[in-house]
Amino acid sequence: MNQLTPEALRRALLEPGSLALVGASDDAAKTAGRPLHFLRSAGFKGTIYPINPNREIVQGERAWPSVASLPEAPDHAYILVPTEGVMAAVEECAARGVKVVTILASGFSEAGHEGAEREQRLRDISARSGMRILGPSSLGVVNLHQQLVLTANAAFAEPGLPKGKIFVASHSGSMIGALVSRGIARGVGFAGLVSVGNEADLGIGEICAATLDDPNIDGYMLFLETIRKGEDLRAFALGAAARGKPVIAYKLGRSSAAAELAVSHTGALAGEDDVADTFLRDCGIARVETLEALIEGLPLLRKTPLASAHGGRPRVGVVTTTGGGAAMVVDQLGVRNVDVQEPSPETFARLAAAGVKVSPGRIVDLTLAGTRYEVMKGALDVLLSAPEFDLVVAVAGSSARYHPNLAVRPVIDSASSAKPLAAFVVPEAQEALALLTAAGVANFRTPEACADAIASAFSRRVPKAAALHAGRVAGDGRMLDELEAYGVLDRLGVPHAPAIAIDANAAVLPDLPVSYPVVAKVLSAEIAHKTDVGGVVLGVRDAEGLMRAVAEIRDNVTRRRPGTVVEKVIAQPMVESIGEVLIGYRLDAQVGPVVMLAAGGVLTEIYRDRSLRLAPVDLATAKDMIAEVKALEALAGYRGKPAGDLDAVAQAIVALSQLACTEDLVVAEAEINPLLVRRAGQGVVAVDALVRLA
Amino acid sequence: MNQLTPEALRRALLEPGSLALVGASDDAAKTAGRPLHFLRSAGFKGTIYPINPNREIVQGERAWPSVASLPEAPDHAYILVPTEGVMAAVEECAARGVKVVTILASGFSEAGHEGAEREQRLRDISARSGMRILGPSSLGVVNLHQQLVLTANAAFAEPGLPKGKIFVASHSGSMIGALVSRGIARGVGFAGLVSVGNEADLGIGEICAATLDDPNIDGYMLFLETIRKGEDLRAFALGAAARGKPVIAYKLGRSSAAAELAVSHTGALAGEDDVADTFLRDCGIARVETLEALIEGLPLLRKTPLASAHGGRPRVGVVTTTGGGAAMVVDQLGVRNVDVQEPSPETFARLAAAGVKVSPGRIVDLTLAGTRYEVMKGALDVLLSAPEFDLVVAVAGSSARYHPNLAVRPVIDSASSAKPLAAFVVPEAQEALALLTAAGVANFRTPEACADAIASAFSRRVPKAAALHAGRVAGDGRMLDELEAYGVLDRLGVPHAPAIAIDANAAVLPDLPVSYPVVAKVLSAEIAHKTDVGGVVLGVRDAEGLMRAVAEIRDNVTRRRPGTVVEKVIAQPMVESIGEVLIGYRLDAQVGPVVMLAAGGVLTEIYRDRSLRLAPVDLATAKDMIAEVKALEALAGYRGKPAGDLDAVAQAIVALSQLACTEDLVVAEAEINPLLVRRAGQGVVAVDALVRLA
Repeated sequence: MNQLTPEALRRALLEPGSLALVGASDDAAKTAGRPLHFLRSAGFKGTIYPINPNREIVQGERAWPSVASLPEAPDHAYILVPTEGVMAAVEECAARGVKVVTILASGFSEAGHEGAEREQRLRDISARSGMRILGPSSLGVVNLHQQLVLTANAAFAEPGLPKGKIFVASHSGSMIGALVSRGIARGVGFAGLVSVGNEADLGIGEICAATLDDPNIDGYMLFLETIRKGEDLRAFALGAAARGKPVIAYKLGRSSAAAELAVSHTGALAGEDDVADTFLRDCGIARVETLEALIEGLPLLRKTPLASAHGGRPRVGVVTTTGGGAAMVVDQLGVRNVDVQEPSPETFARLAAAGVKVSPGRIVDLTLAGTRYEVMKGALDVLLSAPEFDLVVAVAGSSARYHPNLAVRPVIDSASSAKPLAAFVVPEAQEALALLTAAGVANFRTPEACADAIASAFSRRVPKAAALHAGRVAGDGRMLDELEAYGVLDRLGVPHAPAIAIDANAAVLPDLPVSYPVVAKVLSAEIAHKTDVGGVVLGVRDAEGLMRAVAEIRDNVTRRRPGTVVEKVIAQPMVESIGEVLIGYRLDAQVGPVVMLAAGGVLTEIYRDRSLRLAPVDLATAKDMIAEVKALEALAGYRGKPAGDLDAVAQAIVALSQLACTEDLVVAEAEINPLLVRRAGQGVVAVDALVRLA
Repeated sequence: MNQLTPEALRRALLEPGSLALVGASDDAAKTAGRPLHFLRSAGFKGTIYPINPNREIVQGERAWPSVASLPEAPDHAYILVPTEGVMAAVEECAARGVKVVTILASGFSEAGHEGAEREQRLRDISARSGMRILGPSSLGVVNLHQQLVLTANAAFAEPGLPKGKIFVASHSGSMIGALVSRGIARGVGFAGLVSVGNEADLGIGEICAATLDDPNIDGYMLFLETIRKGEDLRAFALGAAARGKPVIAYKLGRSSAAAELAVSHTGALAGEDDVADTFLRDCGIARVETLEALIEGLPLLRKTPLASAHGGRPRVGVVTTTGGGAAMVVDQLGVRNVDVQEPSPETFARLAAAGVKVSPGRIVDLTLAGTRYEVMKGALDVLLSAPEFDLVVAVAGSSARYHPNLAVRPVIDSASSAKPLAAFVVPEAQEALALLTAAGVANFRTPEACADAIASAFSRRVPKAAALHAGRVAGDGRMLDELEAYGVLDRLGVPHAPAIAIDANAAVLPDLPVSYPVVAKVLSAEIAHKTDVGGVVLGVRDAEGLMRAVAEIRDNVTRRRPGTVVEKVIAQPMVESIGEVLIGYRLDAQVGPVVMLAAGGVLTEIYRDRSLRLAPVDLATAKDMIAEVKALEALAGYRGKPAGDLDAVAQAIVALSQLACTEDLVVAEAEINPLLVRRAGQGVVAVDALVRLA
């Protein structure tokens, strides 16, 4: 079967000419009755076929006994029947040539093994027929520009929902209603909303990508519970970035990440929140931490270029009529590592020349004088053209409540500035907020949402096309032994200590081409944690000691891991260093290739101190990663201590990340732990490595 | 002069029979004209004396040329003149016998040396005359129950401000207006508000303490920029706790704390945000992180007993009609270390018996069935009486917007439960929120404020009376040398390694009563960082080595610190240990005695990983502190590593904290760094200590 083109998908999903409502109820208040009622109330112009085998009339309209009996194949069918009936209805729709079905019922992959099997059958039907499936557990699809209110969400009973240019995709069906109601209160309108449910077939990425060229849509708002179909999401994000359509996301799952401590263990990367966070940032998607910033943030993103912050730390200027209110924003920005910058002497001079009197300081506090139009406007003109700021925040005090028009007029009149501008309104001041929203100026009711949106806007990175190995790779691959793993490092150009294999059962040792002292380690692809089984002996000083070490290792491993046959031990020269790091690579099932840097040791595990990026990365990105790992401050000349060769660390990160691009070598997981860091100029040396093939 | 009693202070400040407005302007729109206008508009019943030497009539009222000319001494004078005129006006008020003056002008301690001198003169006048001073930089005082709108804040022009039982004290004058306007929107009314400015004389603690027995006040809301007059604040907090009147606070300054890295250096404790945080918690004050939680949180505190969380981690139950909305609260609670708990099997059985059908899981998700009264009420009845929960959150979905009365009725009908109950409303639903507020149920518009308020409620600790050395101690004290510092540890009962003093210039060494190997260290009260000047030699193996070490230390120190005469070196046996910690004590100028625990070493400095408490502490508190330092997980049997003697660490914390109570020894600052931690059962050993007397 031919798949629908993105445009055909968009039409069937969001602009269907004909709709079937399978299992439509006569009772408009019931869940299965709502879509028909909402569609008619909204004035949907296409054809609607209520399907109900038990009634000839549903909500006063002619009902059809089955999809098969319809006079045409509808573009889109919403299946409202209970879980038990879903499969038959989907089969019937596929047979009839429906282009898209949306499934309301739950009880699929979230409901154990049987549910997962049912969901797989849905995918099979889709693959076989070419019919696309939204859901299951989808509360439906809304396109306000087409009066398509194809949803069972009671929130859409509300008349006169404001149309706008934002497209919403949400894992949670109830949240599309909550976002609409909260949008109404803030003057934020929507083009469309889709509840994607389990994403058995259609995912957020593919749906949003299909809408990218819709002129009615100029930005995307995502409510995420997890990351699924990362490749599609990334392709959409690339398309959105190319078109200058910003994407903002709220994602659940921060706290489980905080609870998990393992930094380095096999499988631990998957599904962790910081992996999702990295993915979103690398896709150029602004992830916010507060619900209000999700509603309020898009106008700011529209004005803030991707990756516009200089050197990682964006510099923000703040102008205010009220010190206390501005201080809250400064504090909240600081918590999020965004610096509020004191204006330069030149800027202060320009302010003075413009007749704006301010005391020196981090905040441009106009005090009550700032309630005069020309003072605030003059200050904004100067700040918005000052080179030291990446963004300017205007903070409005009580006058925003009592004289909204006067108070926010200078901000509104600055809306066309090229530099991003945000407004925080300290009092409760609905009218001022509404004026700002109408003028397209990003405005915030709370200092937290203001700082959150700003920080998230600057945290985005310019998205790149996915790497070679971005897709899922099925099957468990082979684990390489340490020598084979060094072979992979050789290929990538990551330096490692030489390692010589020794027959663990030989009566005499050959001459070794390495200098003592050495470390002796069991060589086995099956033993992930060699120390735990007594498989490592440090500080071996001579050949005699090495013989003893080999015997000790053989005995230890055989005793602690019964059934293991120790065939080989490797000897590796001891390397002097001043610190160590861990570099990891993983072909994540959801987000694709990821590279990770952490400091080694117990404390960095406890603090969960690591930096991640989608792989591959370039040298500048690798250096950013080093700067993000707090523990590595200790290797950057901290308090007069010697500095480590962090340039060589960066090169090793770049090299390992190239696993994302090796055509003939698909690695599921690799870990260099530790990579010893020597003094600046002396390089790095891997002294252990794990590699698992895909 | 006699000081006013707290009750007399309260009357003069908040219920004055007569008022002077010094410098009252004829123009009601001007800052200096507003108080008269607002007082008249509000219907203030006391006598008002506008003072204006240039006018006989001010805003249609008789004006008086001076305070001296008044027919009586007014209870309270608000000085509205510019900075230059303040001192004369204050002197005049003092001479006339005014009880309290409030000063609007700024330009005092925040304005450099001259301003600080002016502020000191204000204090001198107050001390001499007994007249109390509010401000400078005070926007005034409001008592809505007395129609006292004695403020220049334009926000109080608004008619019909809702009266309530909350008293606000704020460092920021503009924020009292913002809080009032935001309160209006949430149905939150106020009893009184005071803008305390610089707290030159009257501080937040003393003012609030004076109102503790006011039956019109049942809770306190503080907006803090810093902590001043900690002893008064603590006394107020004790009184509030004794009366069951909760105190909630928003404090600026989180971010500067994050920026400061020094964990252990002299002076670094002062003014740091985590010190303020500890102080507030130990005072039983709930510090919130979000502005909205400040407005919304008090009803929750009223229901949540101080220190009601079992074993440090409060257990929260969540019941919802909407999974997505509840998940946001769960996530936000998790980020704040509050566990959402799965109901026990017994509780699930009771739910089933009550006819409430739910799937097993962390959240009690009633789905759409929960919009029926009996289902939600039944679930709430069960959860609110289940022993595994310290608090229950009810999350309301779309129905709260469309059928507010129905949706929140079961929550309102559960308001009388003994267990704390909070409501989060997912959609925009003003009416539902207003109904909950009117019923006294804590309710929140955002998941962040909901989780913030809950976490802050449980973060409070039962306040204790201040320790002996809580007050300020003036003057720089003497630094003890290491041997003298060990003498202090001996007195407190903190074990330390024996240390023998050696004459650094002796030609031969006496026999030492210690066993080698030893550490040799320069003994000098002037050298804080001995290693930095080459003053430490480790691993000295015999008497000959010790002679060499003494000479080396003498040479190093003389060379690197010219002018220093090395008189003594100490020898101290090397001690085996598996880890180390740092314990500090400080008599903080604002908050009084504080004890601090951190893990030693560079990484814990970098991560700023430490725990603080007001001193003294008991053993249970010391153990809580150990649990709060993340790095110490590594000494608690982490991943099969040997456990350290954390009980002995706790005892050492308790012992050092007793410095707060030593009558004949007032220590400004003490630091044991490191305290070596041996294996469990083997104790701890201090091997260096700094003590500075007050």
